[in-house]
Amino acid sequence: MILRPIGHLETPFATLADCPRNGRALDPAPECHAVLVPEFHPGLQDIEGFSHLVLLYWLGPQPDDLVVHPGFDQQPHGVFATRAPVRPNPIGLSVVAFAGLAAPGRLRVRYLDCRNNTPLLDIKPYLPRTDSEPHAHMGWLTR
Amino acid sequence: MILRPIGHLETPFATLADCPRNGRALDPAPECHAVLVPEFHPGLQDIEGFSHLVLLYWLGPQPDDLVVHPGFDQQPHGVFATRAPVRPNPIGLSVVAFAGLAAPGRLRVRYLDCRNNTPLLDIKPYLPRTDSEPHAHMGWLTR
Repeated sequence: MILRPIGHLETPFATLADCPRNGRALDPAPECHAVLVPEFHPGLQDIEGFSHLVLLYWLGPQPDDLVVHPGFDQQPHGVFATRAPVRPNPIGLSVVAFAGLAAPGRLRVRYLDCRNNTPLLDIKPYLPRTDSEPHAHMGWLTR
Repeated sequence: MILRPIGHLETPFATLADCPRNGRALDPAPECHAVLVPEFHPGLQDIEGFSHLVLLYWLGPQPDDLVVHPGFDQQPHGVFATRAPVRPNPIGLSVVAFAGLAAPGRLRVRYLDCRNNTPLLDIKPYLPRTDSEPHAHMGWLTR
């Protein structure tokens, strides 16, 4: 199971320490760009008109920890009960607001929280009828 | 960028032709299981209490098409404007309802639409404050 970057993400966050806790922690949320390699531009046909997208990206090599300590909590939690970047397959996921193309293959988005130049893996349209669960319960995160 | 399966998904759908258009197309939605390899069980600590999860899984080798024809529409669309399984990095994503563990490492979930024995890549807790956009506009899909 081998992945290839389809482009990269441009964010204002140079280092992990610069990244906000989540993509909505900054107000206003800064504009970021998802930039596709030219060979993948045809895959964007009809993407305009979606207000939100799901972006998948590569978080880079990670330690093998299965239990992590989020910075904002004193207790350890299993990686699958957190959104920590440390996970067996380091795929990051963000639901982003999409404001159209700034140039061919360059998508204007908000709510990213990852480092600048993060490799982009996939773009999916956000579909509220299958992706939105506004009343979902958040387990230990509601403590 | 190499992935490793952390387990597999058990669904009632033996072939691609058996799969519903999306995981909520069947009423009632059948119970499915996400089954983790034992070495990853510690990563589930504190997952109970989340009502919904995001599952990422491997859709298998795919053709290189960047423009696809969803079965329910006559027009071609860019892969990044669809949720078709054909995509440069064949990572599937489902937001699922989570009903707890049936056994250690065996998660009871609903709303999967993929084939039985699909390799599982990641489990993330669903967080409505960053993942839910109930009023998102769906572009060509609203035609």
